[in-house]
Amino acid sequence: MLLELIDSPTDLKKLALPELPQLAEEIRQFLIQKLSATGGHLAPNLGVVELTLALHYLYDSPEDKFIFDVGHQAYVHKMLTGRQGRFDTLRQKDGLCGFVKRNESEHDVWEAGHSSTSLSAAMGMALARDLKGESNKVIAIIGDGALTGGMALEALNHIGHEKRKLMVVLNDNEMSIAPNVGAIHNYLGKVRSEKIYRKAKDELDWLLRKVPAIGGKLARTADRVKDSLKYLVAPDGMLFEEFGLKYFGPVDGHDVNKLLETFKQADNVDGPVLVHVLTVKGKGYSPAEADSHTWHGITGSYKIESGQVVKPVGPPMYTEVFGNTLIELAERDKRIVAITPAMPGGSGLLKFAKQFPNRMFDVGIAEQHAATMSAALAMEGMKPVFAVYSTFLQRAYDQVVHDICRQNLNVIFAIDRAGFVGADGETHQGVYDIAFLRHIPNMVLMMPKDENELRNMLATAIHYDDGPIAVRYPRIAGTGVAIDETMTPLEIGSWETVREGDYAAVLAIGPMVQVAEDAAELLKREGINIRVVNARFVKPLDEKMLLALAKERIPLLVLEEGAVQGGLGSAILEYYALHGSQPVSIHIAGVPDVFVEHATIKEQRAESGLTAEAVAKQLASLAVRKRQKAT
Amino acid sequence: MLLELIDSPTDLKKLALPELPQLAEEIRQFLIQKLSATGGHLAPNLGVVELTLALHYLYDSPEDKFIFDVGHQAYVHKMLTGRQGRFDTLRQKDGLCGFVKRNESEHDVWEAGHSSTSLSAAMGMALARDLKGESNKVIAIIGDGALTGGMALEALNHIGHEKRKLMVVLNDNEMSIAPNVGAIHNYLGKVRSEKIYRKAKDELDWLLRKVPAIGGKLARTADRVKDSLKYLVAPDGMLFEEFGLKYFGPVDGHDVNKLLETFKQADNVDGPVLVHVLTVKGKGYSPAEADSHTWHGITGSYKIESGQVVKPVGPPMYTEVFGNTLIELAERDKRIVAITPAMPGGSGLLKFAKQFPNRMFDVGIAEQHAATMSAALAMEGMKPVFAVYSTFLQRAYDQVVHDICRQNLNVIFAIDRAGFVGADGETHQGVYDIAFLRHIPNMVLMMPKDENELRNMLATAIHYDDGPIAVRYPRIAGTGVAIDETMTPLEIGSWETVREGDYAAVLAIGPMVQVAEDAAELLKREGINIRVVNARFVKPLDEKMLLALAKERIPLLVLEEGAVQGGLGSAILEYYALHGSQPVSIHIAGVPDVFVEHATIKEQRAESGLTAEAVAKQLASLAVRKRQKAT
Repeated sequence: MLLELIDSPTDLKKLALPELPQLAEEIRQFLIQKLSATGGHLAPNLGVVELTLALHYLYDSPEDKFIFDVGHQAYVHKMLTGRQGRFDTLRQKDGLCGFVKRNESEHDVWEAGHSSTSLSAAMGMALARDLKGESNKVIAIIGDGALTGGMALEALNHIGHEKRKLMVVLNDNEMSIAPNVGAIHNYLGKVRSEKIYRKAKDELDWLLRKVPAIGGKLARTADRVKDSLKYLVAPDGMLFEEFGLKYFGPVDGHDVNKLLETFKQADNVDGPVLVHVLTVKGKGYSPAEADSHTWHGITGSYKIESGQVVKPVGPPMYTEVFGNTLIELAERDKRIVAITPAMPGGSGLLKFAKQFPNRMFDVGIAEQHAATMSAALAMEGMKPVFAVYSTFLQRAYDQVVHDICRQNLNVIFAIDRAGFVGADGETHQGVYDIAFLRHIPNMVLMMPKDENELRNMLATAIHYDDGPIAVRYPRIAGTGVAIDETMTPLEIGSWETVREGDYAAVLAIGPMVQVAEDAAELLKREGINIRVVNARFVKPLDEKMLLALAKERIPLLVLEEGAVQGGLGSAILEYYALHGSQPVSIHIAGVPDVFVEHATIKEQRAESGLTAEAVAKQLASLAVRKRQKAT
Repeated sequence: MLLELIDSPTDLKKLALPELPQLAEEIRQFLIQKLSATGGHLAPNLGVVELTLALHYLYDSPEDKFIFDVGHQAYVHKMLTGRQGRFDTLRQKDGLCGFVKRNESEHDVWEAGHSSTSLSAAMGMALARDLKGESNKVIAIIGDGALTGGMALEALNHIGHEKRKLMVVLNDNEMSIAPNVGAIHNYLGKVRSEKIYRKAKDELDWLLRKVPAIGGKLARTADRVKDSLKYLVAPDGMLFEEFGLKYFGPVDGHDVNKLLETFKQADNVDGPVLVHVLTVKGKGYSPAEADSHTWHGITGSYKIESGQVVKPVGPPMYTEVFGNTLIELAERDKRIVAITPAMPGGSGLLKFAKQFPNRMFDVGIAEQHAATMSAALAMEGMKPVFAVYSTFLQRAYDQVVHDICRQNLNVIFAIDRAGFVGADGETHQGVYDIAFLRHIPNMVLMMPKDENELRNMLATAIHYDDGPIAVRYPRIAGTGVAIDETMTPLEIGSWETVREGDYAAVLAIGPMVQVAEDAAELLKREGINIRVVNARFVKPLDEKMLLALAKERIPLLVLEEGAVQGGLGSAILEYYALHGSQPVSIHIAGVPDVFVEHATIKEQRAESGLTAEAVAKQLASLAVRKRQKAT
């Protein structure tokens, strides 16, 4: 086993070049084996085995900076930098992070979880290097999908302008997570395969070499044409050359020799270069090669031989309920269209896309464009449903403010992965959307307590005509509640008391309603009766109920799986401050002011005090206080 | 006067083509005249006179949709659609808006104030049209500067993919507000001027036309080359053709005939087209042509003959103090670099750029890239100062969360135009940054009460090493306070009592500290003593002072020129709720939950109850309540 010899990039450099293919094979077997137990981003990492080997073989990390875009394709990098032994703990609490992580290794120099940041990072690192008079290499490794993200293109524009020495490795596997969309993708496809280009160029070259023999004006013209032929460059890499980067490739990303050769060539350029590397996602594991969409990221475990992914049993995920419900609604309302930024599968829209191919728009990794395009669709009388993960909606904050809410357009936001997301960790937590949405005028923001209410909320959103409206739901299975035959739109701003009690009232949203009920159940044994309110509208609040609660002088605990700062509790406090009425006391249990790392959702909730036990304890102390006051 | 005959696009269409140049001249004189009193975006509008005439002459607004990117270049459009009579009220309260505004006219179909949204809007409108089976034209008019914004490139990528019929008019004046940067800009420069391209293409065409006469293999090859010549297209528009748009131009944007001809040609294409129009910013008014940077937007009035802009006298603007102070700091600390997204002038960085050309990075309209590049500069030990308007920082929200705060990098944010911005109105108000920044872990957020404190805060930010730190300051002149000889870093999280009193305490930030003092002065006459606290750290709060205030049982009024929802008041309420202590009462005066339209800053403050008089009134009522309780 060569793999056992490799504890650092220095060890790798001791291997002879011909040994690398064997090492690549061993790495693949290691990943297929380990991930079958832990889950993780198998297909992306199988695709970059040789690429990562070539980079570490040729360059000197950490002096030379490897910047992995998105960072979920750094498993091989982790293996080569002393972390093989930790793969059993991958994506688990206190275990190896599924993304690049600076506190794990000096070789991890830039963290990401969202896509398209690597080119900006590379530009900044190259500028800092030049300002400090240093000479290290800066290398960004970016997928073709991530390249369509606006900020990557902004960076490309600046890189071409600055002309600093840096290398962009375009890891082109024709996929982001879903099959790619967009003109850039089509362009890359042409570069990859369109032989007509090269043939035309070759033949033109040949023709012009022949022409001088002809003599006269024709020959003189041909000379000039040849001189300027360099401007009529072949379309290979033309797009990147227009952006000001020297283009190399395409090169086979599974041939270490060719990779090394191309990198060395590209190194000779004193300015920005782009090396176009063709890889196969899932390379070396046939189930993953055959369906790299499914195998992009595996949540649980799988059986290696059969390639069968172990699926949890139980109630459907909220995502699935969303997708199915949207189909029902779209069957009755022709105005409904769905928009996704490269997440048709993750957002539960594959069935919708199949049933309504003309009403489904996957815009690629382009959240800003998705939001503003939705605004324009609404302006023209459609019912755009923008399906997006909470964490990725962060990318479209300005478009939500400036284009959608300011123009008060009837865009429907289906915000998936709201709350904790588990193993993906801190880059993906959906805990800020309440804080970044609820201060925007005109916004309506809801969260359902169960999957049946999700359906009613989607009906509410479609029924609503007055402006933007958002439903946020978590990355978990529903509660298994019975589904009503017909959907009933809710009254905007109406909360629901789901359990009576008079010692204290919990105002909870989403899955926290169940946590509150469980806490109430625990306290009931001690003779303490807790009221539970499903505070399903984060905006607008149920003012009537808030006023009644204040009058009643019952202590309130706001329970939310989201940032306390700027959250639902904050909204309720503001309401009372602005209206001059005061409940006896308000307390908040939510996500504290720190980034919450990878673990299971259950563990993340426990860390933040969002379990039935913790809530019961907090409530008991409130009740005691209330009784003390009463005596 | 032809202009007097034009009250609608229908009137315009009655004119004969040869009359249009005279009308263009009248429009220019009208704008130069009117804006000399009101100010406004003169240069951009002088640049699009013929372009706007051609569009309205040829197409049928509002059925055909004109989408003006940024929307500040729609004055001519407003004149042609019945709004000539309102130009005396331009950018004034209840007057004509300086941007496209739907409630002004049915011809205003899409609003903007931020750049680069028009292509996404056009894509959405084209999709809606096709889904509804309609056939109107959709035309986006976008500047070359706005084209570098990431979302415009995201849209271009999707437009090229969808292949719907729509027209992008590229208004290329070689300027955004400052001279443009970036590879796309350089590319357009080549297209504009590089004759070698066209010559090479022409000569190759000629050559290939001649070749068939030659016979034999040469001729056959030439045939094939000609067949595939369409792939070897000339570099004119190559970039856009690669994105999948058919390219037309460049065409002289001040020649109505040529514009009409080109538009008609482009109309024949059944898919997306880009018409490249060359215009001169400030065309027809020599001071504006000579210095289109200054004349991009004029805040006050100017003298037509001399082209002299009337400048206000008094203390320096905060912006200027920032720029000068940064130079002082940068002289002593080589790590300091400045980053601006296309606003070197507006952010007060022109002198800095002159003194430190190698430490100043204007990245073009690219806030996302600017933020993440700053993160990488900080990662490598530099002290990046990201100078950005509050409203434009909205574009980089995700980068602030995911790249800067999550990695806890020492990026310094200089947030200009925080609070009300006056005449630019609702698209530009800087009233959300507290709400969208303070819930992000690791962030430090300050606002100075005067220009001397701004200097101390900048010193604080440079001195600070622990993570991201932001200073926000308003779009107004300083208070004229004396400037200390040396800058003194502040203790992080320390507030300052600037006036003693015991009836109530105002916790104010920025210019509101002065408003609070004025209010206190008014109440002093009635024997009411108000305490004024400069709550200069929005995050972290001065917890010691907050606890002391609660103990004292003095009523609190939080005074902020920012959204109440999620603002400083909200932060203080949260603090007390989380720590279980309660002041006798907390009240908030801030910007209510609506978008505030154009007016003077003074008027905008009055509308929101943020004047000394309104605050005094609110305080008096608190004091009364306190006295009532005491008795």
